[in-house]
This record gives sequence, C-alpha cells and structure tokens, in this order.
Amino acid sequence: MPKFRVSIEYDGGNYVGWQKQNNGPSIQESLEHALESFSGMKTEVIGAGRTDSGVHALSMTAHFELESDQFSLETIKKAMNYHLGKQPITVLEVMPIDQNFHARFSAINRKYLYRILNRATPPALDIGRVWFVPRRLNEIDMQKAAAVLIGKHDFTSFRAKHCQALSPEKTIRDITVNRIDDEIQIFAEAKSFLHHQVRNIVGTLKLVGEGRWTEQDVIRILKAKDRSIAGPTAPAAGLYFAGADYDDNY
Amino acid sequence: MPKFRVSIEYDGGNYVGWQKQNNGPSIQESLEHALESFSGMKTEVIGAGRTDSGVHALSMTAHFELESDQFSLETIKKAMNYHLGKQPITVLEVMPIDQNFHARFSAINRKYLYRILNRATPPALDIGRVWFVPRRLNEIDMQKAAAVLIGKHDFTSFRAKHCQALSPEKTIRDITVNRIDDEIQIFAEAKSFLHHQVRNIVGTLKLVGEGRWTEQDVIRILKAKDRSIAGPTAPAAGLYFAGADYDDNY
Repeated sequence: MPKFRVSIEYDGGNYVGWQKQNNGPSIQESLEHALESFSGMKTEVIGAGRTDSGVHALSMTAHFELESDQFSLETIKKAMNYHLGKQPITVLEVMPIDQNFHARFSAINRKYLYRILNRATPPALDIGRVWFVPRRLNEIDMQKAAAVLIGKHDFTSFRAKHCQALSPEKTIRDITVNRIDDEIQIFAEAKSFLHHQVRNIVGTLKLVGEGRWTEQDVIRILKAKDRSIAGPTAPAAGLYFAGADYDDNY
Repeated sequence: MPKFRVSIEYDGGNYVGWQKQNNGPSIQESLEHALESFSGMKTEVIGAGRTDSGVHALSMTAHFELESDQFSLETIKKAMNYHLGKQPITVLEVMPIDQNFHARFSAINRKYLYRILNRATPPALDIGRVWFVPRRLNEIDMQKAAAVLIGKHDFTSFRAKHCQALSPEKTIRDITVNRIDDEIQIFAEAKSFLHHQVRNIVGTLKLVGEGRWTEQDVIRILKAKDRSIAGPTAPAAGLYFAGADYDDNY
C-alpha cells in the first residue's frame, strides 16, 4: 500500500488534542474522516507529536497509508482540504514516502515555539494563541536561565505527573528566548520531550523573567528532580508544534 | 469635561464594523457600553477611521469625554478591558488629550496593512485574518505597479460606489509590497482614503501579481476614472487599520 508523509497546520483551540479520544473532536480524527470521505478507505493517521488540547501546529508531520495508488499527491492534498471544510486544519504538503518511515518513531528532532504576549493589556487579535503576561519580562535573564537546561538532564522537575515516558532523561538541543516588540518567543528543540516539558519550562522561565527566580534557581530546580518546586505549567494556548526533522534518506 | 485619547486593537470578524448600526454589534458600541458600565456615563467614542465589517485594527485611535475627572488613566484602561470581557477588543493605551483633539478630524496620516496568504493551501491559523490567494504572486511586479498610485490622483477607479467623500482626489503618501515567506504584506499611507480604496487597490495589485496586468495597465486604469475597469474589491478579512498620526502638539 502506498505510504504518504504530510505536513499539517492547525489551531488546536477547539480540539481535545492531536489524539483520538472519546471526550471530543481531535485533529487525528478530523484528518482520518477527511481521508475516508474522499477515498472511501479507513486509515490511521500517525503524527510526529501528540499535542495536548489547545496546542497548535505550524507544521505537524504525519503519515498514513492508502489501499489504492489511484490518487495523485495533488488530489490527496486538495481532497483532504476540501473535506476538512471550515475546520482550522490545513494540509500543507503531501509526499510519497518509504515504507520504513514512521512520523513518530523516525523523527530525529522536534521543534516547539511558545509565544508570550508581554504587554499591559490582554490580546484581541491573538486570543487563544498566546499566554498573556502583563508584568514586564526580562528576556535576557530568561535566555541565561534557559541555557542551563540545554544538554542531557533528568527533567523530573519539568515532567507532568501522568507522563508515560520510560525515563525522565532527555537531551535538549537548544532553547532560545527572543523579544519581538510585545512578544516573547521561546524556541525549544530536542529529539523528544517529556509530557508538558516545554510548558513546564516556560512556566519556570516566566518567573525568571519577572525577576522572582534567577539562573541559579533553575540549576537548583533541575537538580532537585521534584516537579513541585518548579514553576507552574504554562497555558496550552501559547504552544505551537513547529516542525519535526527526519534523516535525509526520507 | 476631561477628554481622552485611546488606542484600540480589535478583530472585526464578528462585527458590522467600527460604526454603530442597527444590524449587529459594532466596535464603537462595544466601547461605549464598556465605558458606561464602569462610569455610569453615556459617552460617544469617535474613531480615526470607520472600518468596515470584518476589517481589523492593530491600533485604532479614538477619543471620548467623561463627565467626571475622578478616574485615573490606569483605571479607565483596566475598567474598559474588564467590561469588554471576552470580546476580541482591547484598549492598549489611554491618555489625557487637549479639548481641540478629534480622532477623526485631527488625523494627518492613516496607515493600513493588507495581508495576503500566498500559498497552495488555505489558512488554518489565520482564518478570517488574511486573503487566501493560491496562485503565486510576483511581489516585485506588484511593488512597481503600486508605485504608480503614489501621489495626488483622482482615484475614481478605486472608489466604492457608495463612497460619501466630496472629492475622488486623494494623496497616497506611500504603498509598499513585501513578501515574508508565504505572506504578501501591503502597507498604504495617506491623510485619508476613499471608501474601499485600499481593498480596491489590493484587488488590482493581486491581478498584477498574477501576471494578468502590468504597471502600464494600472496607469491606464487610474487615468480611466472608471471603477468598472479596475480589479475587484479584496476581502475585508485581510485588512488592518494600522495606526493614525497626529500633530506633535497632541
């Protein structure tokens, strides 16, 4: 059966998350319905990441198989977007891909963006798309503290209680903190992340930005391996899955 | 009575426009309700521009008077935002202003931004915020054609039928066309614009970008003073009131 790799943009605001669940609409289910509607075939769509409810994607990679090879790539893309209708989900690209490719297991790098609106007044144009933080944040201090987390560490202090990963050790390739006018953008890259790891890191960096904690506190928190002493989980609305990378042979 | 100058950000998607009308909610009405709710006073809010239904604002300037001087600027801002609740309207700034100031009549320059999403697939994150144009646009050709319109001209060819301006003559200070990845951004500045002038210009520039018209066609269209030979009106969703300028003495 031909296998396809797709990239997808979505607004996760009104979804229970990427993964199919019984309690509401998911991105995965919407994509599978769109595929079934045009092809008549039931197929599973596997994503590079399983974003939580309210989390968005600038470019989520996924794969699926179709029982038929009668459809062109252009047809698949157009038909999926047609059947997604007015939902805030769009298929950006469809490519044929090797049978060995797996959107989740083949990924060698995942990128996330977190957006904080840092101004005195709440968002109007970016409602549901940013974390609104009215207190002025010092992005230089945040960047210094973020640098502490780069590399291989036990991230128990930044791991959700219900995280199912076998180990709390992860290797963060990079974290950068930038201010663009009223917005603080935090980019994080790793082969994979623990559940809520990015949002928990952002919740801690925000307290650093407010001057309540320093780089030294972040070192202390990381070493403590205790979720309860780190900052709160930043809201889902500010988080974007920004892309997955794969080996060049895919 | 103390007079105030405010700047406001809004998503115009679910409003009939800036101005109060009988057929639905307006930005002006929402602001006046918010002012009345906290101050108990009925007051009129006058904007620098009267944006149409679906048009947004990055920063709309407006003014109003209050019968009482008991409120601090911070109180007015916070109370208005509180009473605007979950509406996509936010008051960015409140300043005291001279009695002679009039948000509409004192404006010496108005700036608009128009956003075109120029890629093969429809928007997910920017639904209602951009004009989706799948055919590849040449932004260099668009910029050349836009330059033709800079200066003082009779803009009858780019004027809405129901425009109430006394004269079709306007002076465009500047128009720039830039591409940022998949997005074409068109900035236009003038002391004032005719009704639909920016959207009608964008509708024509889009046809230039598609290669259907050239700079020479835009010269011809401008000279013809005939709305029917110019391009269609670009959708409201891509347009943003980006700011008004006033004399330094305000």
